Amino acid sequence: MSKLLIVGTVAFDAIETPFGKTDKILGGAATYISLSASQFGVESGIVSVVGGDFPKEYLKKLNDRNINTDGIEIIEEGKTFFWKGKYHNDLNSRDTLITDLNVLADFNPVVPEKFIQPEFLMLGNLHPAVQMAVINQIPVRPKLVVLDTMNFWMDNTWDALMEVIAKIDVITINDEEARQLSGEYSLVKAAQKIYEMGPKYVVIKKGEHGALLFHEDNVFFAPALPLEEVFDPTGAGDTFAGGFIGHMAKTEDISFENMKRGVIAGSNLASFCVEKFGTERMENLTHNEIQERLLQFKLLTQFDIEIG
Amino acid sequence: MSKLLIVGTVAFDAIETPFGKTDKILGGAATYISLSASQFGVESGIVSVVGGDFPKEYLKKLNDRNINTDGIEIIEEGKTFFWKGKYHNDLNSRDTLITDLNVLADFNPVVPEKFIQPEFLMLGNLHPAVQMAVINQIPVRPKLVVLDTMNFWMDNTWDALMEVIAKIDVITINDEEARQLSGEYSLVKAAQKIYEMGPKYVVIKKGEHGALLFHEDNVFFAPALPLEEVFDPTGAGDTFAGGFIGHMAKTEDISFENMKRGVIAGSNLASFCVEKFGTERMENLTHNEIQERLLQFKLLTQFDIEIG
Repeated sequence: MSKLLIVGTVAFDAIETPFGKTDKILGGAATYISLSASQFGVESGIVSVVGGDFPKEYLKKLNDRNINTDGIEIIEEGKTFFWKGKYHNDLNSRDTLITDLNVLADFNPVVPEKFIQPEFLMLGNLHPAVQMAVINQIPVRPKLVVLDTMNFWMDNTWDALMEVIAKIDVITINDEEARQLSGEYSLVKAAQKIYEMGPKYVVIKKGEHGALLFHEDNVFFAPALPLEEVFDPTGAGDTFAGGFIGHMAKTEDISFENMKRGVIAGSNLASFCVEKFGTERMENLTHNEIQERLLQFKLLTQFDIEIG
Repeated sequence: MSKLLIVGTVAFDAIETPFGKTDKILGGAATYISLSASQFGVESGIVSVVGGDFPKEYLKKLNDRNINTDGIEIIEEGKTFFWKGKYHNDLNSRDTLITDLNVLADFNPVVPEKFIQPEFLMLGNLHPAVQMAVINQIPVRPKLVVLDTMNFWMDNTWDALMEVIAKIDVITINDEEARQLSGEYSLVKAAQKIYEMGPKYVVIKKGEHGALLFHEDNVFFAPALPLEEVFDPTGAGDTFAGGFIGHMAKTEDISFENMKRGVIAGSNLASFCVEKFGTERMENLTHNEIQERLLQFKLLTQFDIEIG
């Protein structure tokens, strides 16, 4: 069975949406990625850091889904990364109210021996120097390295970001970030510019408008499932990435055709994530629910047209 | 061969985009709809009105594509409807600079005898009372009646709009308009509310983000083709509607399965429309170009995933 290593934040989130608010709950990119990828039954481990205030039960939630947490360093005297945000009424935009880096500020990632040779590596959104430090600890290049990042790193750590982007296979970013990274408004042109930075595959996430997968002159589109209710978009992008890398790791096939299925799998899982606050929906998701919704994706997108 | 009747504006447009500007050129909803539908080789006619200033060569452009213009009334002493607009840098929004209704202000549509029994009826965006007047002249209910409208009529002629919406089969509107019409933010819920107003099929146009087709509990999504360059979005929505009704009229099959192909056909034609100013691209479009791009739509959306 192929091994999947996930690097990213494990955090407390406090979320306010038009439908309610939470105190500090389990959050973080690596959390959402790993919960999503865990649906594919691959052996996965997280590299991250938390403080002494991080509840053991949260680690147990991850362990219960066969996610190895040996690589989550616990700094007893430190505090866990905390993010607080408030969504606007349309849920398409949000204000960050608090970002307390805490133990994340001086994070030196250490890949546990057990995961030192992962076949699949997911670099969740984090300081690019941390992402790079993980790559540098892995002696044999994984089959596939996927990186997620955001505009904050483009604004503040451009050179470090370019360094890590040069080392990866797949980048996942949103549409605005693709435009910022490339300086191109057209997403087709943006993808072409981003190829030149390193990644051979570019995934552009458009939230409720779906996601585009670019490779050379090929493009594939995975829609978002139209939902009656979106309750909390937190973690949807990470859940998408987790579904993608989970599918890839399970199938061990890194062809473009299989990546199409990967982005559909990611879009499928993200459609569940947004139905409840935080990680709640992802914790009790069943195989049958996922399969049923895959069928909905087929019905949503598949057509039969004669080309003559 | 089934007959298609198209009601809508035939107009002068003056357009400014970040890439250039035009003086008065051929425009109008019925113009774009008919040029698009003409690709399907159905017998079509327009009901509209223009002034004495409208060049005969513009009518000839339509006639050259087998579009019957006998129903375009020419009011010699009047002036043609004129719209002037300027697009913002992202091309997703625009300011209307001039709207001179001119002969459109007192338009009494008269359906020519030859088109009094159309199998397919497309009511382009126009005053709902004019749309209704056309329905009232047609003694036998067409196989399919499609209506396009916009927020202006929701703001100003709500009752007249409700009256005509009750009489149609398919409504095409954009996402913001669907929300305004229904009072629901979720497009799934919006479609359900709109069913109750009359139409059994709801098409929600999302511009560069594609289009959704709703019917009962079914939903289908047609993406927009990701393009390197969008030159001028004017007429894209009408071209989409023209491709949809043109496909339906050609195939004479009003099943949901076939409507899926209709929205793909519409999305395909709209992807050409935006490549040049005004109607230019639609005037010289070839069958082969359309078929090649349909293949691109297949590659963009079709995937093969096992559901177990």
